[in-house]
Amino acid sequence: MMKLKNDISDKAVGRLSLYRRLLQELLENGRSQVFSHELAIRAGCTPAQVRRDIMNLEVLGSPAKGYEIQKLMAGISSVLDSDAPQKVGLAGVGNLGRAILAYFSGRTPQFVITAAFDSDPTKVNRVIHGCRCYPVDELVSVVREENIQVGIVAVPAAEAQQVVDEFCRGGVLGLMNFAPVRVRVPVGVYVENLDVMAALERVAFFARRLSAVRGE
Amino acid sequence: MMKLKNDISDKAVGRLSLYRRLLQELLENGRSQVFSHELAIRAGCTPAQVRRDIMNLEVLGSPAKGYEIQKLMAGISSVLDSDAPQKVGLAGVGNLGRAILAYFSGRTPQFVITAAFDSDPTKVNRVIHGCRCYPVDELVSVVREENIQVGIVAVPAAEAQQVVDEFCRGGVLGLMNFAPVRVRVPVGVYVENLDVMAALERVAFFARRLSAVRGE
Repeated sequence: MMKLKNDISDKAVGRLSLYRRLLQELLENGRSQVFSHELAIRAGCTPAQVRRDIMNLEVLGSPAKGYEIQKLMAGISSVLDSDAPQKVGLAGVGNLGRAILAYFSGRTPQFVITAAFDSDPTKVNRVIHGCRCYPVDELVSVVREENIQVGIVAVPAAEAQQVVDEFCRGGVLGLMNFAPVRVRVPVGVYVENLDVMAALERVAFFARRLSAVRGE
Repeated sequence: MMKLKNDISDKAVGRLSLYRRLLQELLENGRSQVFSHELAIRAGCTPAQVRRDIMNLEVLGSPAKGYEIQKLMAGISSVLDSDAPQKVGLAGVGNLGRAILAYFSGRTPQFVITAAFDSDPTKVNRVIHGCRCYPVDELVSVVREENIQVGIVAVPAAEAQQVVDEFCRGGVLGLMNFAPVRVRVPVGVYVENLDVMAALERVAFFARRLSAVRGE
């Protein structure tokens, strides 16, 4: 990794991750070459954007044939993937936490959810979807010992900040926050907020509004 | 609903939804009044933004005591909630779809996942987390008959566009897309993309980069 010439934004990283999955699909459909405009349509951006992103990967295409899909995928992996699987910790093993464990379990060679944490004594010291569940009191020490770099927050809103603080004390540098609250982190820690309930509320709101506009 | 004087953006709807959950938490902690700057800190925006959003709700506060939490919550609900529970359809009952069913099941009075759809014959005609699972061939007709307005897409990337087309033919006006691909919809249909894997890839990427910067 770290082959990039320039700095890279979170949006650019998101696009690379999307391109890779789109390229994987094209490969599965028997394709070996792709044009920037084809990727652009599928990714919902402009062909110029696609070409800029690919330029950063130092992969060259030909005007007549486009880009070789395998080369593009290798280029993206050299940027996005670590050499060894990255260790992830999960706080909160309720409905959402279990769903996350089931969803990620075994399907992503580049991530391993190494440890889960919960305060519920009936969950602690069990193995859930292949992952050991520790008492949440041990979060800082387990994160340190296991050298976990990424934390997933799936606890209720009221507990989220404390869990985030402990992940950061343990040395985590990236957090994915599913709790419906904005969390504060020290400078230099990266956070993504995924507020699933707020997203559904927005969708439902605009669906009703559109329905009202149509006079249904 | 539809009490708003002005048009409202998706970001504003998202903030209202977040404020409501933050207010609920304050209520549970015994508070009855709140200042705009307190909400702003928790929501990660400016006090001026909070006051503008509240002005649209036609709720008044006092400089000395702030806003009454109950009134704010009622104002937000009059905008965000429908009078009757809104019907939601779910396409895809794999790991992610089941997780979504388990997560939403019973916890949101304003939404009901009325029908799930899958192509797997072992899932069809069963009740999963309280929701009936139909064959995906019946998606258009069930969505029409049940008057489902919101669709959740939890199928693999390769099947997402077809499912989206069928939801739209059935009359759905809002879609929440968990498939890792951008989908095309007719004009006037609202889509939220929640690409969980791309989000984790971004978090992992920046965690590694930050770790490299720190020289660990």
